[in-house]
Amino acid sequence: MTDHIVSSFDADLQTLGDKLAEMGGLCEKLVGESIEALLRRDIPLAKRVIEWDRSIDRLQHEIEENGILTIAKRAPVAIDLREVVAALRIANDLERIGDLAKNIAKRVVALEGQFQPPKLAGGVAHIADLTLAQLKEVLDAYTQRDERRAMEVWKRDGDIDALYNSLFRELLTYMMEDPRNIGFCAHLLFCAKNIERIGDHATNVAETVYYLVHGEAVTDERPKGDLAGAAISYD
Amino acid sequence: MTDHIVSSFDADLQTLGDKLAEMGGLCEKLVGESIEALLRRDIPLAKRVIEWDRSIDRLQHEIEENGILTIAKRAPVAIDLREVVAALRIANDLERIGDLAKNIAKRVVALEGQFQPPKLAGGVAHIADLTLAQLKEVLDAYTQRDERRAMEVWKRDGDIDALYNSLFRELLTYMMEDPRNIGFCAHLLFCAKNIERIGDHATNVAETVYYLVHGEAVTDERPKGDLAGAAISYD
Repeated sequence: MTDHIVSSFDADLQTLGDKLAEMGGLCEKLVGESIEALLRRDIPLAKRVIEWDRSIDRLQHEIEENGILTIAKRAPVAIDLREVVAALRIANDLERIGDLAKNIAKRVVALEGQFQPPKLAGGVAHIADLTLAQLKEVLDAYTQRDERRAMEVWKRDGDIDALYNSLFRELLTYMMEDPRNIGFCAHLLFCAKNIERIGDHATNVAETVYYLVHGEAVTDERPKGDLAGAAISYD
Repeated sequence: MTDHIVSSFDADLQTLGDKLAEMGGLCEKLVGESIEALLRRDIPLAKRVIEWDRSIDRLQHEIEENGILTIAKRAPVAIDLREVVAALRIANDLERIGDLAKNIAKRVVALEGQFQPPKLAGGVAHIADLTLAQLKEVLDAYTQRDERRAMEVWKRDGDIDALYNSLFRELLTYMMEDPRNIGFCAHLLFCAKNIERIGDHATNVAETVYYLVHGEAVTDERPKGDLAGAAISYD
């Protein structure tokens, strides 16, 4: 391989890395703002989140296109190939995280004027804080190619699942207490589920960092929070 | 390009096509069986669906690996490149469809012994039939590279969204009528949402067929069912 080709590949990788960093920053921002919009019932903020999600989609398309062309042009192998494949996979997860944030924001808009039962924000805020922290941490782990840090995130996903299960039960209780709560709580169930799924995508990113560093997939089963309540912890 | 290289590429493409056909068939089967398990409360069938989803995941990994290596080795361009990219994208959507079927099956297992309100199966069966028909149709359209047929599927996704919205409202009504319905209906809300999301992935496949044939993305906005009820139609 000549220096020219090597440096072209490095330039391609730099472009991918820059776009992915932009995408990751945007995702963190939109997840944080979608939750803020939900907790404050802030419709204008929710609408901005919905609008911004388009930028995430655009970045994902660009990363896919650039990544595929890089593989076709440079035929990278080993760690170089894994770098490109990892960028493609992470962009895919980030695009879905953006979608999930957008969906929370859409529910905020839809809930305009609906009766909001008191005491509900606490549980959602808690699971959202944890999930956002996981997302930030795994993106840092990726930037630093720090597979240990990534696997710490991976191990903590069970905590989010456990919180989600407890929140699910709490929301059902509110619904049973007062039928006026049912509409709002049903939407909140989906918001909580979306947050839990954002956590799953952070876990996917952790697995991609592991693959990138080690050249093989994580073989352990994912930790599950609250096995007794596993009845309600999935999708 | 020599004949040798051309035929190697064709052989690669054939392998990808075979694996994708296997994956598509498995997805149709698992979606159908997960719904059947839900409607009949058939726990052993649900457990088989959960087990089979592993095969879908395995196929997706193989397709990703083979596809990326094909791009690196053969550096295909134009329609040849789009063939490989389309296979990667469709495998991604099918993997998620398999996950959604598995999640429905997991809820069936979780609901074992729970009180089931009467009259609920109808709405779920209807949206499930429509979604399964869309999935079969779009996979056929892909096999035949029939972009018109794919776009017919694309246009009908609004019907699934509309059905989902109406089912969502119906389920909330049952919850309000009798608090004993709340637990079961909450799980059913998520099952209905999973079915609606399977429809979204069929729509993604339709867009991939369009891209494959035309070399560009679908630019129209997706049709949305029941705009007035858009409050509840997303994620």
